[in-house]
Amino acid sequence: MPKPPSKRLLSALSGEALWPPPVWLMRQAGRYLPEYRAVRARAGGFVALCTTPELAAEVTLQPVRRFGMDGAILFSDILILPWALGYDLDFREGEGPVLPPLQDRAAVDRLDPACMGERVAPVLETVRRVRRALGEDAPETALIGFAGAPWTVACYMVEGRGTKEFASPRRMAHAEPALFGALIERLTAATVEYLAAQADAGAEALMLFDSWAGLLPPRLFAEHVVGPARRIRAVLRERCPGVPVIGFPRLAGLGAVAYAEATGVDAVALDTGADLAQIGPMLPARVATQGNLDPMALVAGGDALAAGARDVLAGARGRAHVFNLGHGVVPETPPEHVAELVRLVRGAG
Amino acid sequence: MPKPPSKRLLSALSGEALWPPPVWLMRQAGRYLPEYRAVRARAGGFVALCTTPELAAEVTLQPVRRFGMDGAILFSDILILPWALGYDLDFREGEGPVLPPLQDRAAVDRLDPACMGERVAPVLETVRRVRRALGEDAPETALIGFAGAPWTVACYMVEGRGTKEFASPRRMAHAEPALFGALIERLTAATVEYLAAQADAGAEALMLFDSWAGLLPPRLFAEHVVGPARRIRAVLRERCPGVPVIGFPRLAGLGAVAYAEATGVDAVALDTGADLAQIGPMLPARVATQGNLDPMALVAGGDALAAGARDVLAGARGRAHVFNLGHGVVPETPPEHVAELVRLVRGAG
Repeated sequence: MPKPPSKRLLSALSGEALWPPPVWLMRQAGRYLPEYRAVRARAGGFVALCTTPELAAEVTLQPVRRFGMDGAILFSDILILPWALGYDLDFREGEGPVLPPLQDRAAVDRLDPACMGERVAPVLETVRRVRRALGEDAPETALIGFAGAPWTVACYMVEGRGTKEFASPRRMAHAEPALFGALIERLTAATVEYLAAQADAGAEALMLFDSWAGLLPPRLFAEHVVGPARRIRAVLRERCPGVPVIGFPRLAGLGAVAYAEATGVDAVALDTGADLAQIGPMLPARVATQGNLDPMALVAGGDALAAGARDVLAGARGRAHVFNLGHGVVPETPPEHVAELVRLVRGAG
Repeated sequence: MPKPPSKRLLSALSGEALWPPPVWLMRQAGRYLPEYRAVRARAGGFVALCTTPELAAEVTLQPVRRFGMDGAILFSDILILPWALGYDLDFREGEGPVLPPLQDRAAVDRLDPACMGERVAPVLETVRRVRRALGEDAPETALIGFAGAPWTVACYMVEGRGTKEFASPRRMAHAEPALFGALIERLTAATVEYLAAQADAGAEALMLFDSWAGLLPPRLFAEHVVGPARRIRAVLRERCPGVPVIGFPRLAGLGAVAYAEATGVDAVALDTGADLAQIGPMLPARVATQGNLDPMALVAGGDALAAGARDVLAGARGRAHVFNLGHGVVPETPPEHVAELVRLVRGAG
């Protein structure tokens, strides 16, 4: 499917400094929307929602309909990948994801690419449905596929749940480098397949979420964050040429510069703490940026939202930039604040 | 008390590039030491331990005796400051600190500097005891006092406990700037008094812990992290000239450069994710560095510890640097790994 010239998100990712910048938001489909909560209640469970194409496509499209976003991101979860490799996954109310903590080589060897095809089939069907629906109803909105990056997915697998510190994977990366390296390698190979399949199904851009990239010291950051992203990007360049990749090495600070230089990603997403005006000029000129309004400014609304949006826009001026948050939309966000943000960005003078 | 010329930690903080660098570790007094656990069991509660000079002094000195550290850091907690202002504080086993979530101006106005003198008296007595003991038994070890920075202390007060995200204080900083600003101002004034009193009692260096600095977007980072640190540093320069201040804007990434430039701190402590070799040359030449071995490399020991220490030492070469971790020692750290680390640093060629 050739890219229509009118998709502003894809133009920005290809390096065009558009003004105003295109806009979409991480977790723009989610609990803050009443229409999402209604579908979620029907789905039974979170994994069921992610793997029922009719429902997953519907929630993917909701924020596009409501706000006219320039990007629609596939509704899914980063832990669908290990689940697709046969790893147990449960989402518990108020607790988040729960997995069996990975402790040995046997558990790595049991990760089974052979079962992946069947398990990701409904995700790919969701991609096809969304792409078709966008073509009919929102031809200027680009569809973004995504995966968790190997380090961040490994964090949840080794720890068994989300925590503040992810002590177990960090300890394993230091103390059991062969075991941890095997896990990262297995996840890297599966991530390539998963993302390439999303592109084949119709995703027009791909995003790699490394939410916990900033927890690693420089040596391990190079090994487990930069290395896998570089390998994934390189293979995708062969397998689905022309599909841009956005990398999100969250909390990496200055490491985002090394990441942008070494991985070959088309865009680097910046987290809330990054000062775009300061780090932007340090990035390679060929790399676009994305981000990075504080999700809490969106919760607050009013003057805080206006000031926060103004700061991001000022930093983005003259750059190939995609307006976004520095982290996902939180459940307590008033939907009307999202509408106001889109108005602010679109009206940027 | 004049500074003996032999205190290497103070020389490094005054800008001397010493080789090998002096070494101490954040949370070097703590649960990983059996002798600490024995004293802790006697103390009754955590606040009682912090406010019983005999016991607090004993645990402060334990790692100096065992490892011969170049620095002894007062055993206390960053939440002792709000507690000293009359704010409720409880430490629950396995849960950490619990405070009443601050929600209004009345709660800010109730913070009472008048009750601070009495409540911090035992902390200051601990400082005097430790200083005296070091003078007798470890004359080359410098005593470090500390406080939590206003933003990080406010995080715990507004949220009521430690979390991954500290959504409530971040929301309040955006949505209720007058209320949040009043809280930060009140804490800033109290922090100055608290640190000046520690210096008067014998602390030879002071550290300001801003553990959650990296959660803020640039505008609020400037307002609530850099601004208070600058004001605190400026007043301390008048009140206790010659006592160096180490600032720790954790997770701030490139923001650590702006912090080092604007606050006037003598040293900036870097977190685990920072690449000293990369960020070091960006810092003002007058500012020393401290850090930043991954605490998990210390848990792992062996090759990981040796490689991690080597990386930090390579980045510190030629700089005024204090060897430390990028975050605190964790409870599961084998004490013999700490001894090994001190040997590695002291033997650096």
